[in-house]
Amino acid sequence: MPEDTTQDIIFVTCTAPVNIAVVKYWGKRDEDLILPINSSLSVTLHQDQLKSTTTVACSARFKEDRIWLNGKEENINQPRLQSCLREIRRLVRKRRSNRDPGADVLSLSHKVHICSENNFPTAAGLASSAAGYACLVYTLSRLLSVEGELSTIARQGSGSACRSMYGGFVQWHMGMRADGKDSVAEQVEPESHWPELRVLVLVVSAERKPVGSTAGMQTSVDTSSLLKHRAEAVVPGRMDEMIQAIRKRDFSTFGELTMKDSNQFHATCLDTYPPIFYLNDVSRRVIGLVHRYNRHYRETRVAYTFDAGPNAVIYTLQPYVSEFVQVVKHFFPPETNGEEFLKGLPVGTVSLSDELTRAIAMDTLPKGIRYIISTKPGPGPRMVEDTSLHLLGPDGLPRTSA
Amino acid sequence: MPEDTTQDIIFVTCTAPVNIAVVKYWGKRDEDLILPINSSLSVTLHQDQLKSTTTVACSARFKEDRIWLNGKEENINQPRLQSCLREIRRLVRKRRSNRDPGADVLSLSHKVHICSENNFPTAAGLASSAAGYACLVYTLSRLLSVEGELSTIARQGSGSACRSMYGGFVQWHMGMRADGKDSVAEQVEPESHWPELRVLVLVVSAERKPVGSTAGMQTSVDTSSLLKHRAEAVVPGRMDEMIQAIRKRDFSTFGELTMKDSNQFHATCLDTYPPIFYLNDVSRRVIGLVHRYNRHYRETRVAYTFDAGPNAVIYTLQPYVSEFVQVVKHFFPPETNGEEFLKGLPVGTVSLSDELTRAIAMDTLPKGIRYIISTKPGPGPRMVEDTSLHLLGPDGLPRTSA
Repeated sequence: MPEDTTQDIIFVTCTAPVNIAVVKYWGKRDEDLILPINSSLSVTLHQDQLKSTTTVACSARFKEDRIWLNGKEENINQPRLQSCLREIRRLVRKRRSNRDPGADVLSLSHKVHICSENNFPTAAGLASSAAGYACLVYTLSRLLSVEGELSTIARQGSGSACRSMYGGFVQWHMGMRADGKDSVAEQVEPESHWPELRVLVLVVSAERKPVGSTAGMQTSVDTSSLLKHRAEAVVPGRMDEMIQAIRKRDFSTFGELTMKDSNQFHATCLDTYPPIFYLNDVSRRVIGLVHRYNRHYRETRVAYTFDAGPNAVIYTLQPYVSEFVQVVKHFFPPETNGEEFLKGLPVGTVSLSDELTRAIAMDTLPKGIRYIISTKPGPGPRMVEDTSLHLLGPDGLPRTSA
Repeated sequence: MPEDTTQDIIFVTCTAPVNIAVVKYWGKRDEDLILPINSSLSVTLHQDQLKSTTTVACSARFKEDRIWLNGKEENINQPRLQSCLREIRRLVRKRRSNRDPGADVLSLSHKVHICSENNFPTAAGLASSAAGYACLVYTLSRLLSVEGELSTIARQGSGSACRSMYGGFVQWHMGMRADGKDSVAEQVEPESHWPELRVLVLVVSAERKPVGSTAGMQTSVDTSSLLKHRAEAVVPGRMDEMIQAIRKRDFSTFGELTMKDSNQFHATCLDTYPPIFYLNDVSRRVIGLVHRYNRHYRETRVAYTFDAGPNAVIYTLQPYVSEFVQVVKHFFPPETNGEEFLKGLPVGTVSLSDELTRAIAMDTLPKGIRYIISTKPGPGPRMVEDTSLHLLGPDGLPRTSA
């Protein structure tokens, strides 16, 4: 239900999370509907650290649909945005004709103003479009009081956005149908299922902007025979194994599969022609560090995964967080001045044993990592009750716009 | 026939070339016999620039087999060395029993002294073991006057050594037999077939020694499902296409296949667990430079390939060499002092158009490339007639040993 009315404008504000895949999505079989060539699985990160916030306002007074992203007005006619608006309005029409004729306060002809922002810098290299589209679709659904399969709508904004519609551990079924109706996200387990699981985002200094994922994955589909093999012969079994590892809270299997899947995704990028590189020398050092750390303890305590950029996302368990953060600080000594190195959930300090640092035996790389965001699995999208947090003012325009 | 006798010691000295694969060998199906999981194809480089030299001396006076590599005595009991000595002696026995009993000047019980060196630094990251084992086997065969299928013997020293037994364009048939008798090298075309083809070895500054290829490829076979797919489903077709491109001197197809195959090899390294990285940030910049250069001319004029290290080997045609070298110098400005940047075949100087450097539009990376070796396809192993070039002195010990 709409929660606030001011001068015949209705406002709803919601937040939605970032998700980090442990079985990666790379490649579409349908560009328009955003249907993937393989299923995928992700962990939803906690919104206390990373979230998108969206306010949608609806009024008979608005002359046109408009959108502002991170304070800047963007083109509302972008096809993927239009897909989401069209699909959500289709659900409204369907509900009215089916069971609730005439009961809505909102006319379908009313225009919307959308304002969205992230609480994390673009530099963090996190897939802001997933959180952003999940937030848009969820907010519109609350504004227009529609229910039903919303993940298929978010999917049409940005593929992995469908997974941000749920908290905890989420799989995106690739589906078989040409119309995409069965290409939906589903929660495997809620965030409460594995309370010890922790996530560290290691933000790496990057010199160049990498190839965008939309263009990149299309080139991979067109040119990489390894990608086709991965989608058909590797991912189905890996999805089953990953779900079992999560259900059993088996970190060793979860971590190993996560690392293997990240590496295989980047391998298919390299098999693309021309090849695509997302990992840089710092990323590779993080990979080396993780394997040496685990080898020292003779078990998988820490796992890395990389999306379409050089930043590492580390999965680990609560007892290992403080030591591993200290290890990162040791081998990537941070700048002493400037912003704080560790953000998010507090991390205890420990001193490292000489035995451990000797076993890792890597050269240090000062400033290789800019900062760490410490977080954990979290819930799905939420409505914000506090009306003072609306991003749009009483006039339906951004509060912070110039 | 042995060519020199001094004080009852017989000496033979030969040289053998380096080869650079354009369809890569990675993974064995038999570790002892060194049988590969896929066929491969390489270009033999000219020995005027890069070669191994080996002198073998044989005498009743020698008490044991001994070997010196690059001036340092090594363990003769190394299994692969023993394989080569055993197999070549088996050929000698076979020849004697078959058709030439008692005619040999050399007793099978005579011991050998082997001395081998490369004219290129280990830092060049070229597979010195291929040239080295090819040279050893060829030299032994000349000393002991044996003929026959020598590439299967060189293969048992180092897999890719079998391809260095021929000049020009050489394929290594993976073979089907368990005993490896059909896993042989064969010349596709001699070096004279494609006189315009040129090779540039771009020696990159590397901070660490990468994972050795023997250990690396075994881990890949054990853990990478993409490697298995590549060997079974990709390489057979690619071998056929590559041979056709060479026969037709079709550089565009040759270059594109070469780049795709290098990328796919490195993709399977990344799909290995733990992953193996041979390319570094400089390698990636070279890859980017080549694609931008080709894109500017709307044709494949230059192609890269990388083996188990960060150094780039560039294939191109004679008319493009001087410009491309200038492009490399522009984007990787060399040190002004110190050793010369360009070694090997002379390269003309040209000035670059602003249009070209603007089209490439990359940041420069001073000293990213240490030097370039300019060369071309060349012949197979050769006997050295000049006895003053023997690496072993009249006493059967290295001339240069301490």
